[in-house]
Amino acid sequence: MSSPSIRERQMIDLRSDTVTRPTPGMLAAMTAAPVGDDVYGEDPTVNELERRTAALFGLEAGLFVPSGTMANQIAVRVHCRPQDEALLETTSHIRLWEAGGAAALSGVTLTPIDSPTRDGRLGASDFAGRVSPDDMHSVRTRLVCLEVTHNRGGGTVLSPDAIGDISRWARQHNLAMHLDGARVWNAIVKTGVPADVWGRMFDTVNVCFSKGLGTPVGSMLLGPRDLIAQARRIRKLFGGAMRQVGFLAAACLYALDHHIERLAEDHENAQVIAKAVEEVPGFTLAPRTVETNLVWFEVDARHGNAKAVAERLKAKGVLVAPLGAHVVRVVTHLDVSREQCQKAAGAIRALAG
Amino acid sequence: MSSPSIRERQMIDLRSDTVTRPTPGMLAAMTAAPVGDDVYGEDPTVNELERRTAALFGLEAGLFVPSGTMANQIAVRVHCRPQDEALLETTSHIRLWEAGGAAALSGVTLTPIDSPTRDGRLGASDFAGRVSPDDMHSVRTRLVCLEVTHNRGGGTVLSPDAIGDISRWARQHNLAMHLDGARVWNAIVKTGVPADVWGRMFDTVNVCFSKGLGTPVGSMLLGPRDLIAQARRIRKLFGGAMRQVGFLAAACLYALDHHIERLAEDHENAQVIAKAVEEVPGFTLAPRTVETNLVWFEVDARHGNAKAVAERLKAKGVLVAPLGAHVVRVVTHLDVSREQCQKAAGAIRALAG
Amino acid sequence: MSSPSIRERQMIDLRSDTVTRPTPGMLAAMTAAPVGDDVYGEDPTVNELERRTAALFGLEAGLFVPSGTMANQIAVRVHCRPQDEALLETTSHIRLWEAGGAAALSGVTLTPIDSPTRDGRLGASDFAGRVSPDDMHSVRTRLVCLEVTHNRGGGTVLSPDAIGDISRWARQHNLAMHLDGARVWNAIVKTGVPADVWGRMFDTVNVCFSKGLGTPVGSMLLGPRDLIAQARRIRKLFGGAMRQVGFLAAACLYALDHHIERLAEDHENAQVIAKAVEEVPGFTLAPRTVETNLVWFEVDARHGNAKAVAERLKAKGVLVAPLGAHVVRVVTHLDVSREQCQKAAGAIRALAG
Amino acid sequence: MSSPSIRERQMIDLRSDTVTRPTPGMLAAMTAAPVGDDVYGEDPTVNELERRTAALFGLEAGLFVPSGTMANQIAVRVHCRPQDEALLETTSHIRLWEAGGAAALSGVTLTPIDSPTRDGRLGASDFAGRVSPDDMHSVRTRLVCLEVTHNRGGGTVLSPDAIGDISRWARQHNLAMHLDGARVWNAIVKTGVPADVWGRMFDTVNVCFSKGLGTPVGSMLLGPRDLIAQARRIRKLFGGAMRQVGFLAAACLYALDHHIERLAEDHENAQVIAKAVEEVPGFTLAPRTVETNLVWFEVDARHGNAKAVAERLKAKGVLVAPLGAHVVRVVTHLDVSREQCQKAAGAIRALAG
Repeated sequence: MSSPSIRERQMIDLRSDTVTRPTPGMLAAMTAAPVGDDVYGEDPTVNELERRTAALFGLEAGLFVPSGTMANQIAVRVHCRPQDEALLETTSHIRLWEAGGAAALSGVTLTPIDSPTRDGRLGASDFAGRVSPDDMHSVRTRLVCLEVTHNRGGGTVLSPDAIGDISRWARQHNLAMHLDGARVWNAIVKTGVPADVWGRMFDTVNVCFSKGLGTPVGSMLLGPRDLIAQARRIRKLFGGAMRQVGFLAAACLYALDHHIERLAEDHENAQVIAKAVEEVPGFTLAPRTVETNLVWFEVDARHGNAKAVAERLKAKGVLVAPLGAHVVRVVTHLDVSREQCQKAAGAIRALAG
Repeated sequence: MSSPSIRERQMIDLRSDTVTRPTPGMLAAMTAAPVGDDVYGEDPTVNELERRTAALFGLEAGLFVPSGTMANQIAVRVHCRPQDEALLETTSHIRLWEAGGAAALSGVTLTPIDSPTRDGRLGASDFAGRVSPDDMHSVRTRLVCLEVTHNRGGGTVLSPDAIGDISRWARQHNLAMHLDGARVWNAIVKTGVPADVWGRMFDTVNVCFSKGLGTPVGSMLLGPRDLIAQARRIRKLFGGAMRQVGFLAAACLYALDHHIERLAEDHENAQVIAKAVEEVPGFTLAPRTVETNLVWFEVDARHGNAKAVAERLKAKGVLVAPLGAHVVRVVTHLDVSREQCQKAAGAIRALAG
Repeated sequence: MSSPSIRERQMIDLRSDTVTRPTPGMLAAMTAAPVGDDVYGEDPTVNELERRTAALFGLEAGLFVPSGTMANQIAVRVHCRPQDEALLETTSHIRLWEAGGAAALSGVTLTPIDSPTRDGRLGASDFAGRVSPDDMHSVRTRLVCLEVTHNRGGGTVLSPDAIGDISRWARQHNLAMHLDGARVWNAIVKTGVPADVWGRMFDTVNVCFSKGLGTPVGSMLLGPRDLIAQARRIRKLFGGAMRQVGFLAAACLYALDHHIERLAEDHENAQVIAKAVEEVPGFTLAPRTVETNLVWFEVDARHGNAKAVAERLKAKGVLVAPLGAHVVRVVTHLDVSREQCQKAAGAIRALAG
Repeated sequence: MSSPSIRERQMIDLRSDTVTRPTPGMLAAMTAAPVGDDVYGEDPTVNELERRTAALFGLEAGLFVPSGTMANQIAVRVHCRPQDEALLETTSHIRLWEAGGAAALSGVTLTPIDSPTRDGRLGASDFAGRVSPDDMHSVRTRLVCLEVTHNRGGGTVLSPDAIGDISRWARQHNLAMHLDGARVWNAIVKTGVPADVWGRMFDTVNVCFSKGLGTPVGSMLLGPRDLIAQARRIRKLFGGAMRQVGFLAAACLYALDHHIERLAEDHENAQVIAKAVEEVPGFTLAPRTVETNLVWFEVDARHGNAKAVAERLKAKGVLVAPLGAHVVRVVTHLDVSREQCQKAAGAIRALAG
């Protein structure tokens, strides 16, 4: 086969941490996994992954789903009824990149709150006064969604203290708390704060195995047993119930054992990239500080636009993601080594012209 | 009957221009109206009102509905499918006070844009870059909704020039334009720009007869014939198709003849109120300039809060609307005379303490 | 004005009992009514109508709405969440003639049950085994809707005994009961069983004033106070909250005093029509027995089709409703006298050819 | 691990053809598959499976999804808007076992048509008169869904001739045609009619790889290129877009090569079971003739109920599915040999008592 995707495998692919392919060890674990029909609750590997991940985050139960989008959208539907409102940061994944699902699937209004620091971070004070009045003209505020690390915010880590403040505010107002923790693993490694501390501050948590942890497919919604039972019904409704899906779950169990601590390498590699970006006139890191494995930067007119930059880097063997007219994202992950990141940094520096 | 509402009729009711009761002339017109079954399209008075209002605004057809909320929500559904997005100013009626209908009824995402002048006004430049990318992760941007006069913005009038600019931008991006013209009559009188100039800049327009025009009930959605035919189906779906509703339509025809020009008096009366507000330390007009019949002001801590101010004015025989913790709205209309507004102004001034 | 609708006023209009125009007495009551802003709960006439109608049916509270369709659709939404199921007779108004609202507005599945007697009647045994299994593959059964009198069933009256049986079955299965009582007035007069006996067998009841009772507009949803509070929010969502709507409510109060007992005349007049239909070869009453004010009959090939029959009767000054390829409906009401019905009967007999 | 599911592996599992586990050959193919990020369209194995399956059925394009439910629900949403109606047989999978998705996700009304032969089969004449009138009171009929083989109907095969008739009727009325072909492979093998003959009679087709074909996970929606592009957006909305899902697609490619023809064995094995069922007094095959790999039968009072029968068979090492109070389903598949089916038949016969 001579498809372009094969040719591009020679490329250093920094578009996303979703592009990883399983390591031999992971593949071996997949092949060896005992499986069963998960629609009947009989896949032992899925069951083990659900138990183990829930325990890790200090929550009662878990539900394996095909994507982080499904985990988030199930959470929205579990917590809200039509006419309800969820509060979340303006550039959250749930709001920007889930195809309008809150409204289109569940009749829920998403109300954006701008991060004052423009890096996805919010504090409890940003929520003050945001509960809709108890009046028939208004939506009913029911849910707060936070995202850690915050993708569009630049891979930033909202601190557990800040989350605690928001959580207390939410409980005062009888609101549920959901964490879009697609990349919460990066926050855990970055801060050293263990998973269950994060988990216990929320009613439900979405964690993804197919991003930094490097598995082919799979996310999980975590929460109390009764909500996860409802979530199981909704997963069926959305068409996300699968059969012998233990093959995919086995990769996730492998990743829990082998791929969490190594995220620190991705964070270091991101610094290599960030430094290069800072050296190019006309490139501006946004936000200025890179905390985890995501490097977002803006390109000014002298570089044309984001697509032009991405094309020039591609010609040098480096794939990056233009995610706005003048915005580029670079992501480090399991499938790119320090050496490759140094090469990529060189390619970026070369754009200084 | 000794209900409180009767006692309050002695009150000067400035909570909203929706509280008006028909004049004897209007009531006579209602009683004399020929009627028929409007579900069958056979109410001659409704048909005349639809024809006449559409012609007035330079649009092809009209549909009589029970409320401005229904007119707006039908418009959202006519223009959009689930997963679509409408752009509108953050404090628009459609977003704040229609019970989350866009999401809950039609699966449509409302994306707010903050008015830089904080008075509900937007310019074409505020829309730049707001069309969602053509990508499966995103909603599809399909509709722009403007509101003239802008209620929460303070009764402000977005100029026809600004609307023209936004409209050109919208058409470049293949978006529909809807006007929430619940109080467009006030804008027409204020600016002297005739109805059809406003109407022709939009695909659909909602006009209300039950606010400034002083009729008991009724709004209308205006637009091209094919969209109004779809709107008729949606009105049935929403339960808004009524039978011999010509009685209400007759009041609207009467108002078209007798109650438009007199809105200028309401605007003058609002100035009387505004001047009083400005004289009270701790009250701040927001926005600073009152353009039509709505006076919004903020009350600071020395007055307690909005509810406390409303209670104190009620004790003096004046009803106003506390519409936020520290926000009060005063509305002039057909049922309050210049003299009553002067009395109300006196009551407000007396709060200076 | 020379519109066709005016010409047709000379016609004997038997298409529906919705076509009535107010009597002078009713019009006088409307004109004299005290009104207020019902969105604020301040219209004394609406409040009185809600109290009085609720009391009449032995239920706690009422909500005035623009149409029977809105009352029914609010009931569906009050009782059900998306993914829930309502059971109802196959030819119910809610299923045939409400524009797919249960699914399109509230995500609710309607599951039809065929009337074994083909006249809209169901017994408790027809519901046996109809509760969906408690399984994530299935909808959740939550609601039973009955219709009395049953429009498409031929104006038939499901007996209170049968309703009682169904109601007991429903409560065993934890299902809510809703009555589409758009024409329950006819059942009350026909059977002599008072309104509150009907009302107490249901959680919610829709009654219409604009059909047999002869008012221009208006229906009411009745039920327990907490559900009606929710219904008020949904009415706002659907755009059915109106302002000084006491004018319409006054007509309804008038009808409660003057137009219930007289429904017996409509029933007698329907017998006059039915007898004529039976005499025409090729016409078949369906169902065979006419119980209230609706006469449904089928026309066979010798008459062409229903439209042809309706055209021929129109030429003789009689309007009837073709509501299927070979199905005609004739409805007696307040605006057609015995004499007019006799004339209409003559016109029908003349089709015997 | 000593979970019950492990113990039950010793069981002869005839509950469903979804319970199969991959053969060594299939597992080897999965392990060897080149993969990529399918959200970016870069998984070569998925792309090959989509191309190859579409070609096989004579349709332009395919979309790999996690479940047959998702494929069907995407099809409903691609063809219909809210307020639209789909016609389908009363006991269709889409209606019975997809959690009310048509209404709950897409606002679509499903209108059931009873199979006159009570085996899921419909003819064109059963559709006559079923298009809703073009009237604002009605839903808009837009889609016909057929199911081949028909699961609840007993694994029956609607003939291509009958489908052709229905298809011509549908096109006359401007309706789309969707095939729920979760088990169409069984129909292809049973009749010898090639896949593309089935495919070309429909606008969209759902085929499943995780049932008779024995793969762990995976279904595909097939259709014209433009509809499949829309379907891709909806898959994202539903959360069904996955990353390196080529591992699962590889199993499907393997199954296309190795597991189609062998379905004939499952059909023969089903005859073995059916014969046993027929010999037990109080068991009745329903329908009487077993055509493919599904055996449905009813149990009368002497056997208690379906659950009791299933328990007794479980005690003898045979798992079957009680799918109604008195209804049992037995399914033959890749993971049960002729010998095991003979053992199961013996266990069934032993219930004759």
